[in-house]
Amino acid sequence: MSERPLPSLEDVRAAARRIAPHIHRTPVMRSRTLDAMANASLYFKCENLQRVGAFKMRGATNAIFSLSDAVARRGVATHSSGNHAQAVALAAKLRGVDAHVVMPEDAPEVKRAAAESYGARIVTCASNLRAREQTLAEVVEATGATPIHPYDDARVIAGQGTAALELLEQEPELDVLIAPVGGGGLLSGSALAASSQGGALRVIGAEPAAADDAFRSLESGQRQPSLDPVTLADGLRTALGELPFRILREHDVRIRLVDEPEIVGAMRLVWERMKLLIEPSAAVAVATALFDAEAGLAGMRVGVLLSGGNVELEALPFGSSLRA
Amino acid sequence: MSERPLPSLEDVRAAARRIAPHIHRTPVMRSRTLDAMANASLYFKCENLQRVGAFKMRGATNAIFSLSDAVARRGVATHSSGNHAQAVALAAKLRGVDAHVVMPEDAPEVKRAAAESYGARIVTCASNLRAREQTLAEVVEATGATPIHPYDDARVIAGQGTAALELLEQEPELDVLIAPVGGGGLLSGSALAASSQGGALRVIGAEPAAADDAFRSLESGQRQPSLDPVTLADGLRTALGELPFRILREHDVRIRLVDEPEIVGAMRLVWERMKLLIEPSAAVAVATALFDAEAGLAGMRVGVLLSGGNVELEALPFGSSLRA
Repeated sequence: MSERPLPSLEDVRAAARRIAPHIHRTPVMRSRTLDAMANASLYFKCENLQRVGAFKMRGATNAIFSLSDAVARRGVATHSSGNHAQAVALAAKLRGVDAHVVMPEDAPEVKRAAAESYGARIVTCASNLRAREQTLAEVVEATGATPIHPYDDARVIAGQGTAALELLEQEPELDVLIAPVGGGGLLSGSALAASSQGGALRVIGAEPAAADDAFRSLESGQRQPSLDPVTLADGLRTALGELPFRILREHDVRIRLVDEPEIVGAMRLVWERMKLLIEPSAAVAVATALFDAEAGLAGMRVGVLLSGGNVELEALPFGSSLRA
Repeated sequence: MSERPLPSLEDVRAAARRIAPHIHRTPVMRSRTLDAMANASLYFKCENLQRVGAFKMRGATNAIFSLSDAVARRGVATHSSGNHAQAVALAAKLRGVDAHVVMPEDAPEVKRAAAESYGARIVTCASNLRAREQTLAEVVEATGATPIHPYDDARVIAGQGTAALELLEQEPELDVLIAPVGGGGLLSGSALAASSQGGALRVIGAEPAAADDAFRSLESGQRQPSLDPVTLADGLRTALGELPFRILREHDVRIRLVDEPEIVGAMRLVWERMKLLIEPSAAVAVATALFDAEAGLAGMRVGVLLSGGNVELEALPFGSSLRA
């Protein structure tokens, strides 16, 4: 089997043009307090303010608007239960086609309700990867829908890269760009976008130490399995995808690890000091910017991708609630 | 005793010029979801993103930068335990003078720590109004500091009015402006700012039904006492001040009441849909915009002042936390 082609910087630029009518150009925010803590100038790209509350809207929109009319008409499908599901649902709605979303029966109610509110058809299955993949295959077989993979897809990666491309338009003088890494769609897309700077912009992947498969994969040069990771950053439990892995190697992207207390601390700081809701996965990138003394950020201009803001308010990690 | 003079629209304009170097020009945000719920076009003025996390920074800065050098040098003082305390602390620091903040012993730790982090000297007292007033008087006597009242002060009111003035620069075509009302500094300042529109802009005060003294005061034409109010909107438990009362009467400002479930629901919607942390007091204005069918907002362009974003994350009203 021949290797699948990798997306290019030009694909990211084309994605930016394609999705512009359908997404938000998100703001860049700053914080004196966090700058002082990091001893650096931090530029927070607010993808938590993106439609559906996460950068995932970019990749899903690029993938779905890349389909021919004949193919799109048969609908799209995914077995994500996270932000990608909402993104596929909304992008399909904007394209005027059906979205089938396979979700495990224990998916967070807020995410299920959100996908439904965008008009997606939810197909429930057992809570394991095998059941999800099999149910998705059945849906695709029955409907002719196109599966939209959450990260191991060149169109999705190109779409995710538009967040960094946009940030570079807003703040052209960055020295470093930090993105969280789970499946690797955002980080690899960011590496493509950063290549527009001819090597002047260093890209760092931020990963929970408790879910360090991307770190181990790049260290060893072989994709390593994700070992049942237990991290608050639920969006980053996924193993690194094959296309993202190849892109990260090609662009020599380094991964930095943060521990769970750092993730909670970073999340709390952004909530309290910036008044922005970010989800734990986004806090992983913030934690690297704030707490990783070895990352070499002192005095630098650092872009931080706040990847999303979808959190269950009943299950916050900040201590017990006093009210019923 | 002759009546104290009321601040004017020109005072608000002068305040805007005076405080501009020291405060943030806060953004205006929108939400499709909330617009659809309100059946109106809502323009959210994000004073939760203001310095110290609340509009209070405007009034305190105007008051403290209005003092002569000789008076300022003796410092400033307040017995607020809320956002005003932090605002006085930071504005004093910016002016380079001492701030003495009298706080009850049971003040929220987050607010106490914030005031201290801005360099204020905290003076603890018993948790009742009499103890606070007496302790403040002692501090003023001992130091010569100028007390900065949180709302019943013409310079403070003029400062608070700059939020609405700024919003009108950003969105000149508003039909209605909604501000929460507690002591009345923000609402009365907003009424002054709105008078720049020659009557084309209606101002509504949003008040918790459980703390309806402003409503009763304007209905009866006499300031009514605040009857031990029990509302989540802790910033609005204060009774309407005398200067604000006179300004609200003069500008024929109407008060709309919202109940506690509406406040929680509005707060939750802004958190979940807009990814913005707002405090319950700010949610009171949102609740009026979203849930008050009698407010006559259908089809209107409505400015909503998100007054602040300082919340204790350990004590959220959204249900029990699952994590320790």
